[in-house]
Amino acid sequence: MLKFFFGPQSCALASHIALEEAGANYEAVRLNLVAGDQKKPEYLKINPKARVPALLTDRGILTENPAILAYVAQTHPDKKLAPFDDAYAFGKIQAFNSYLCATVHVAHAHGRRAYRWADQQSSFDDMKQKVPETMADCFALIEGEMLEGPWVAGANFSVADCYLFTISSWLESDGVDPKRFPKVLDHRNRMAQRPAVQRVLPQHQ
Amino acid sequence: MLKFFFGPQSCALASHIALEEAGANYEAVRLNLVAGDQKKPEYLKINPKARVPALLTDRGILTENPAILAYVAQTHPDKKLAPFDDAYAFGKIQAFNSYLCATVHVAHAHGRRAYRWADQQSSFDDMKQKVPETMADCFALIEGEMLEGPWVAGANFSVADCYLFTISSWLESDGVDPKRFPKVLDHRNRMAQRPAVQRVLPQHQ
Repeated sequence: MLKFFFGPQSCALASHIALEEAGANYEAVRLNLVAGDQKKPEYLKINPKARVPALLTDRGILTENPAILAYVAQTHPDKKLAPFDDAYAFGKIQAFNSYLCATVHVAHAHGRRAYRWADQQSSFDDMKQKVPETMADCFALIEGEMLEGPWVAGANFSVADCYLFTISSWLESDGVDPKRFPKVLDHRNRMAQRPAVQRVLPQHQ
Repeated sequence: MLKFFFGPQSCALASHIALEEAGANYEAVRLNLVAGDQKKPEYLKINPKARVPALLTDRGILTENPAILAYVAQTHPDKKLAPFDDAYAFGKIQAFNSYLCATVHVAHAHGRRAYRWADQQSSFDDMKQKVPETMADCFALIEGEMLEGPWVAGANFSVADCYLFTISSWLESDGVDPKRFPKVLDHRNRMAQRPAVQRVLPQHQ
């Protein structure tokens, strides 16, 4: 059985929703990230990055949302959560997930974990005050160019929708009014109604 | 025919090497990133992110190294550049590429493009001085936990090797002595001898 490690209010929500959408057979393990569970020796043996999400399979560990999302989709082909038989369509979903992972999540992280990239409080303050601008720029691109609608990849729901929902739910706390992005907001509202999301969300509060 | 957009001394080198390794039929278009070619209207029509790499296919554009690398591998199956028939093995390669994209490249970028995340010169200076530490931390994890050897994924060469070579070639300019990471350095030296790399590298000077 799969074992899924997550923390509340983290990006691990994306992979957690995907596991539910897939109907995967898994056990969810909630870490207390504030208490530092992710830095304890027993977890570092599982994931030496000291981060969530991590998915323990019978062959070993997988980390990083884009990798876990694709793995969940590929191992539950009947759910059609990614178009593996179409390299271009799969590439578009991968490009979307990479953008969320490497640009949007990174923009967000500068408001809370600026210490990763600097040492001075003045730098942390400077980075934090720029987050509303950088996040809005990212979501302007998502709204205008990337979110095909009604789902990320167009007519078909995919793992990219789980990831977009996760990151777009951070907009208010990042100082961005989601009403500026009506397609994203509509996507978020439709995602919130899905049974898989409703099963998972309470565990992430 | 594929059209590949890159800039010299950028992360686009990874996808460029993969195209060569695959024997892909493509035309390479070199942008002058210092002159701002990536922000010109004709390029923004191709890639509204104003970044490289971008791969124009007969169906549309693909961006982000992890997506382009997987696409190149999937569309040239005879070259076996990624194990698409093995979800876990493919997931490991995806996790590796995601880490390079979202953590290692991001760490590097704080030395040169700190203005993406802050506004003050003092913050830029603070971020720049931390780059040797963050990059060394990333490569300690790659050396100790991730690079299986002799290739990233073990016995079989994959697109992840193109990406690691690209980013590990930045170590010296980021203030990190690559001799601290003998497996990475050996990987870099073996990559540099590959004909595909030798054909591509001169275009990236």
